[in-house]
Amino acid sequence: MKPINIGLMGVGTVGGGVATVLKRNAEEISRRAGRDIRLTIASRRNVEQARELVGADVTVVADAFAVVNHPDVDIVVELIGGDTVAKELVLQAIANGKHVVTANKKLLAVHGNEIFARAQEKGVMVAFEAAVAGGIPIIKALREGLSANRIEWLAGIINGTSNFILSEMREKGADFADVLKEAQALGYAEADPTFDVEGHDAGHKLTIMAAIAFGIPMHFDQCYLEGISQLAGKDIQYAEELGYRVKLLGLTRRTEQGVELRVHPTLIPEQQLIANVNGVMNAVLVRGDAIGQALFNGPGAGALPTASAVVADIVDVARLLTSDPEHRVPHLAFQPDQLKDLPILPMGDVVSSYYLRIQAIDRAGVMADITRLLAENGISIEALIQKGSAADGSAEIVILTHRVLEKAANAAIAAIEALDSVAGKVVRLRMEELNG
Amino acid sequence: MKPINIGLMGVGTVGGGVATVLKRNAEEISRRAGRDIRLTIASRRNVEQARELVGADVTVVADAFAVVNHPDVDIVVELIGGDTVAKELVLQAIANGKHVVTANKKLLAVHGNEIFARAQEKGVMVAFEAAVAGGIPIIKALREGLSANRIEWLAGIINGTSNFILSEMREKGADFADVLKEAQALGYAEADPTFDVEGHDAGHKLTIMAAIAFGIPMHFDQCYLEGISQLAGKDIQYAEELGYRVKLLGLTRRTEQGVELRVHPTLIPEQQLIANVNGVMNAVLVRGDAIGQALFNGPGAGALPTASAVVADIVDVARLLTSDPEHRVPHLAFQPDQLKDLPILPMGDVVSSYYLRIQAIDRAGVMADITRLLAENGISIEALIQKGSAADGSAEIVILTHRVLEKAANAAIAAIEALDSVAGKVVRLRMEELNG
Repeated sequence: MKPINIGLMGVGTVGGGVATVLKRNAEEISRRAGRDIRLTIASRRNVEQARELVGADVTVVADAFAVVNHPDVDIVVELIGGDTVAKELVLQAIANGKHVVTANKKLLAVHGNEIFARAQEKGVMVAFEAAVAGGIPIIKALREGLSANRIEWLAGIINGTSNFILSEMREKGADFADVLKEAQALGYAEADPTFDVEGHDAGHKLTIMAAIAFGIPMHFDQCYLEGISQLAGKDIQYAEELGYRVKLLGLTRRTEQGVELRVHPTLIPEQQLIANVNGVMNAVLVRGDAIGQALFNGPGAGALPTASAVVADIVDVARLLTSDPEHRVPHLAFQPDQLKDLPILPMGDVVSSYYLRIQAIDRAGVMADITRLLAENGISIEALIQKGSAADGSAEIVILTHRVLEKAANAAIAAIEALDSVAGKVVRLRMEELNG
Repeated sequence: MKPINIGLMGVGTVGGGVATVLKRNAEEISRRAGRDIRLTIASRRNVEQARELVGADVTVVADAFAVVNHPDVDIVVELIGGDTVAKELVLQAIANGKHVVTANKKLLAVHGNEIFARAQEKGVMVAFEAAVAGGIPIIKALREGLSANRIEWLAGIINGTSNFILSEMREKGADFADVLKEAQALGYAEADPTFDVEGHDAGHKLTIMAAIAFGIPMHFDQCYLEGISQLAGKDIQYAEELGYRVKLLGLTRRTEQGVELRVHPTLIPEQQLIANVNGVMNAVLVRGDAIGQALFNGPGAGALPTASAVVADIVDVARLLTSDPEHRVPHLAFQPDQLKDLPILPMGDVVSSYYLRIQAIDRAGVMADITRLLAENGISIEALIQKGSAADGSAEIVILTHRVLEKAANAAIAAIEALDSVAGKVVRLRMEELNG
């Protein structure tokens, strides 16, 4: 069968990994795909560095547009990242009738609706397994492996940097700032870590998974993002004493009222397998009405794991290159005319249980005041512990609540903070049993 | 698009689940598949019971051949099990040019080479996600999601009955026979549990995964099977004291010499996520050269989880019904003319580390004798503990070894058993760190 020509835009760590995998496993891949897959042309501003990564038999150019406009290229792989020039290139590739494989979560979460519509018009495929959870084939699992299910919710540890930091904070009892420095030294965190630790990256990935799981368009602009930079080491420790681990979770759930779409630090029971996914590993727990729960775990980043997903997409696309669109899996799992928008719930309408840490003056009546305010807002208490009195007469009260509307939790917290006997802000973390 | 007609053979628990899922999620499934999928005809000897399970709008017949020969049926679902009449029916369906979806691991592990060859000749698909690990989309992951990888090994907890029994033995410190009774009462084990607890079922599933992972034919007849019925509660307990859990593992590994294909109780470090997969859950840990390790976890049996896999296969097949074979994923992941047989290693040539429990007379020199015999066979000791002396002057010695050829371990064990100071047989369990 005719070999497939790949044009690669962006030859950095992952691009080098793609070149390595295509070369190293060429025989194995062509035995599977039934055709040879050749990296033909690659682009990077620094042509010399790109050449070192892709080898002498690949044409290297500085201008990525030379890749998308190259007549021999069947599949364009976009590994540039971001949503400016990458967007222009992907749209140009589509306009040229080329299929696209991308690892660009931001591009899809923010501009996916437009990109998939254009791809649909031109009858080309845009594949993006590598955009979510690195090497873990979670897009394929959601889109094809679980296609019999009405997916109810999914929860993912989908940012390796944050998971590394949280794992270290727990293990060493260290604070965020110290562990961040360690992560930066190890190359697990960027110099400016905002994108990872404030939940943006997880939000992009969650947005993509929600679209596929529920058959809705991308709604990144409505995704709630709360990161881990404000997390105190002591809350991780208290959570652990109560039998919970704290993870930065991306969580999306279909309810009668709409779709929850939220990223935030979350207490998870330590018996849950996903609570024990540590370090830079990723994991996604999916709940479907037929399968029940399934967990997918593996490396969420890195040159070769990400290349594993990129090349799997290339093989998939290569197989269907000359096929009727009806033989293809729809981009967003559901047929394009069958996407149905659902409202994304504002956080006030989300239902969760909560971990609250309250700094109170240790005197008679304060506990009564707090529990009364919770009760007045319809919040039942699952556990309450007092963490001893400080020399200044203050005490820490930690409360785990049952499930309640977030707006009720907010109201109770505001009322508690207004008490004379309470100092400063109440620390509030969300908690999910993940057993529904 | 034209609706797809399904003919279902075998309406038991799983068949009822398939009917339920197809009906309950009809809208969601057709939004994904782009066509309606209708259960048209079903067969079971007891027509009345089948009718109750599939509903009034499905034609029910007693004779399964009426399903495979029905002119309107596009896809035949085989849920009869076993490899006698089921084989005849599947081959007849293929001869009739019908696509097949089956959950029948035994049929494929034993007769898969013949069945896939016939399917290839007739240009029809035989899909079998439900044959391995129930609802977990592991066949799809191995065949498509990890297609960029040279798969090095995989290890699976792929028999829920055995995993339930082992989990209970550990948790309650109970013996095999007692827990088996409990499992039978709960419906987790058959009246005759041999198929599950002696490793046959796991061997079938492992054989199928090995074929897909390495591009080799089915070799069930060469799969080593050792079950859990001889396992003593105390070995589970000692293993735990040493930081290990005992799981019935199906393990296949590609080595320079050939392929390891083996099912046996195995010590796994408790830090491994897969060591913490308990109860009837299944899990498969895959090691590929690009992805590193990925774990897939979920329910390995049950009506709806298995139906989840059956219906996902139906959707896949429905999409490609009218396609060129070149657009399809090959049955065994590799193109049929690209399967390359590799020798299956006899157990003597397998490399493993070992847990040994030796009943010895507690006197000077016995430890020296044992360690000398291990050394003479090239076996280094990782840990050695003596479990105290009994009233009769005997002592239990538990040894963990480093990795060594099994034939060397066998020779050492035989020599140790021949010592005057050693009573009875040495208990030998294999041990895998799963970190390679």
